[in-house]
Amino acid sequence: MKPTRLGLLGCGTVGGGVIQLLRANAEYLAQTVGAPLEVARVLVRDPAKERVPELDRALVTTDPEAVLGDASIDVFVEVMGGVDPARGYVERAMRAGRSVVTANKMLLALHGPALLDLAVEKGVDLAFEGSVGGGIPVIRVLRDALASDWVIRLEGIVNGTCNYMLTRMREAGLGFDEAVREAQAKGYAEADPGLDVDGHDAAHKLVVLAILAFGARVDAARVPTEGIRAVAPIDHRFAERFGFTIKHLAIGRDHGDAIELRVHPALVPRDTPLANVNGVLNAIALEGRALGPCLLSGRGAGDMPTAVSVVADVLDVARARRSGFAGTATRAIQMQKRPLLPLGDARARYYLHFLVHDRPGVLARLAGALGDAGVSIEQMVQEGGGGSSGVPVDIVLLTHEARERDLTRALDVIAHSGVAAAPPRLIRIQE
Amino acid sequence: MKPTRLGLLGCGTVGGGVIQLLRANAEYLAQTVGAPLEVARVLVRDPAKERVPELDRALVTTDPEAVLGDASIDVFVEVMGGVDPARGYVERAMRAGRSVVTANKMLLALHGPALLDLAVEKGVDLAFEGSVGGGIPVIRVLRDALASDWVIRLEGIVNGTCNYMLTRMREAGLGFDEAVREAQAKGYAEADPGLDVDGHDAAHKLVVLAILAFGARVDAARVPTEGIRAVAPIDHRFAERFGFTIKHLAIGRDHGDAIELRVHPALVPRDTPLANVNGVLNAIALEGRALGPCLLSGRGAGDMPTAVSVVADVLDVARARRSGFAGTATRAIQMQKRPLLPLGDARARYYLHFLVHDRPGVLARLAGALGDAGVSIEQMVQEGGGGSSGVPVDIVLLTHEARERDLTRALDVIAHSGVAAAPPRLIRIQE
Repeated sequence: MKPTRLGLLGCGTVGGGVIQLLRANAEYLAQTVGAPLEVARVLVRDPAKERVPELDRALVTTDPEAVLGDASIDVFVEVMGGVDPARGYVERAMRAGRSVVTANKMLLALHGPALLDLAVEKGVDLAFEGSVGGGIPVIRVLRDALASDWVIRLEGIVNGTCNYMLTRMREAGLGFDEAVREAQAKGYAEADPGLDVDGHDAAHKLVVLAILAFGARVDAARVPTEGIRAVAPIDHRFAERFGFTIKHLAIGRDHGDAIELRVHPALVPRDTPLANVNGVLNAIALEGRALGPCLLSGRGAGDMPTAVSVVADVLDVARARRSGFAGTATRAIQMQKRPLLPLGDARARYYLHFLVHDRPGVLARLAGALGDAGVSIEQMVQEGGGGSSGVPVDIVLLTHEARERDLTRALDVIAHSGVAAAPPRLIRIQE
Repeated sequence: MKPTRLGLLGCGTVGGGVIQLLRANAEYLAQTVGAPLEVARVLVRDPAKERVPELDRALVTTDPEAVLGDASIDVFVEVMGGVDPARGYVERAMRAGRSVVTANKMLLALHGPALLDLAVEKGVDLAFEGSVGGGIPVIRVLRDALASDWVIRLEGIVNGTCNYMLTRMREAGLGFDEAVREAQAKGYAEADPGLDVDGHDAAHKLVVLAILAFGARVDAARVPTEGIRAVAPIDHRFAERFGFTIKHLAIGRDHGDAIELRVHPALVPRDTPLANVNGVLNAIALEGRALGPCLLSGRGAGDMPTAVSVVADVLDVARARRSGFAGTATRAIQMQKRPLLPLGDARARYYLHFLVHDRPGVLARLAGALGDAGVSIEQMVQEGGGGSSGVPVDIVLLTHEARERDLTRALDVIAHSGVAAAPPRLIRIQE
């Protein structure tokens, strides 16, 4: 039977994993697709680099033309990462009528809607399970399992670096700098950790999830995004005292007329599954209108988990192509520009930290400013102070639900009132 | 375009949900399948019963022949439950060359392999996402997302009644009888709760999961199965003290030469996601060789979650049929008889509870019997006693890892030694 021929664009660790899985499961995959899957050409940058032993070196080339121009190739698999030249390669493959499987979240976050439009125009599939959540099959669940449902909210721990660091800060009392050094030493953080710890990677993934969950075309730059640099050891301690764990979350809500997307640290009730997803693990909690709540958790990154997702996509795409259904699954992803709810209009309970001068009347000033803005206080804890040592004291408040705009107005008043020895800090509570 | 015609066998709450979802998502589903999905006939037992308003009453019949004998029907959807007459209907539909979607776990657990064989023989699909875990897409993940991987272990909280009762026993200190009454009052337990609380329902689901995870044909009656009747309030208290939560688990392991399947209560470390899946929620933790760990959690039962799974299956099966690929996905499920590891050969750490007469030398007798059997003790706590009041005292031990056969030998010695005021109780620890 005529094999389905694959062109690999890139052959790093994920690509190597794909080759190993294709080889190890060749018989099963052939049976499921109805034809053997055959790696036809493999594009690499450095021909001298060591590769997995399963790779036939004769297939390797550094010439993009030798792969993209090969008319015998049925499906392209983009595992090179980065926006350029990946974007041009993916576009060229789809223009030539070929379906593409990609694990490239940055490409999807920045150009996903345009690439999906091109796929629909050309009647091909663009599959991207590997781009979000590594081996967690969240794209598949959003697309297939929830085909007849409507996602009303999602919350994800989608950045393993942040989750590892927050876990270590909480468990071992590390500060941010120590945690980042430890994560780097273990290979969980880049030399320049900004993309992870400042939340941009999570925002990219949220934008990709929003395409499927909410049918939304969103500009990643417009998603309110905070990283974990501002979370201090004292916050972990107080969060624990109040029954919460601090997690870095990507959050989406469908309000009907608008969607709400945001990325930031949040206090999560300690006895929930999400609060107990630790270390480099990722998790995505969904709520479907009919399905109710659903949580998926696993390794959000890593070569083999991502390769498992890529091969699952290859299988789908190859089957669709053989059955004359290429493009059907991709065409079913319906997207429109959807307005984003301004962060000021979002509502939540808040954890607030103040470092204040230990003087009479300070608490009244805090409470007064919050009260004036319509924010009511649920709990208050003061640590240290009580004398007149002159050392600033820590005050932590939990508020009842409030509108973010009202809260930030109150914090602004407090910051300028002369009672604060440092800028107030807020962390949202995610129930 | 010629519609894909569906024959519904049963129209209770799940069937009603299916009809509602098909109606609400008609356009999307038609686009994805490539043809509208049309409910052709609906078989019911009681024609007078109230049904969802979306159901066209003209389609309803009490005559099986009017549905099963209708040659215009493309796909049958079995949502009646129970083994008879569902089994005969499903077989007849497949013999007539029609694919079947079912949400019937008992049918699958007792006759799954034979029904799958028939599906393969007839070149049709038998899809059963709704049969395990309600709306949790675990079947789909095992079948599609892990297509190129190998599952080495799974642990599931798959019975919502048990999980609700254990949650309430732990949180509110209820005894078994109180917990079962409360579950019944809330509609979470049947009038005869045996199928749930004695573990049989969980064993059925484990057998269905084992088909996909381990390619195993297993007789449900041979799965070592314990329910939650023996778990006492004191066990919850001690488990908490040692950092664990008691959950009722369905457990599977692939040892290569044999598979291990068992259903019983277990101590799960408190800070793991599985330990924090509470109330009626279900969860399934998997470990793939390449994927690593993965957890899926959500509503394991309920009409609408199950209906979402059934419709996702209908969509797959209808697409496969239209593209000439009917039966391919089902044929890919490869099953063989696989030997079951005897429970005596399983290894675990154990929680042991003894109620003993408060006499000198008792501890030495317990420790001696365990030591003679090669079981070593990790921790020991005694509650009450210390005088010579004559009131029996509670002693709880945690063991290091041991072979179950050795442990039960030691417990047998202790039970007959005259020191025990009640039979010793063991609960396995699941790390």
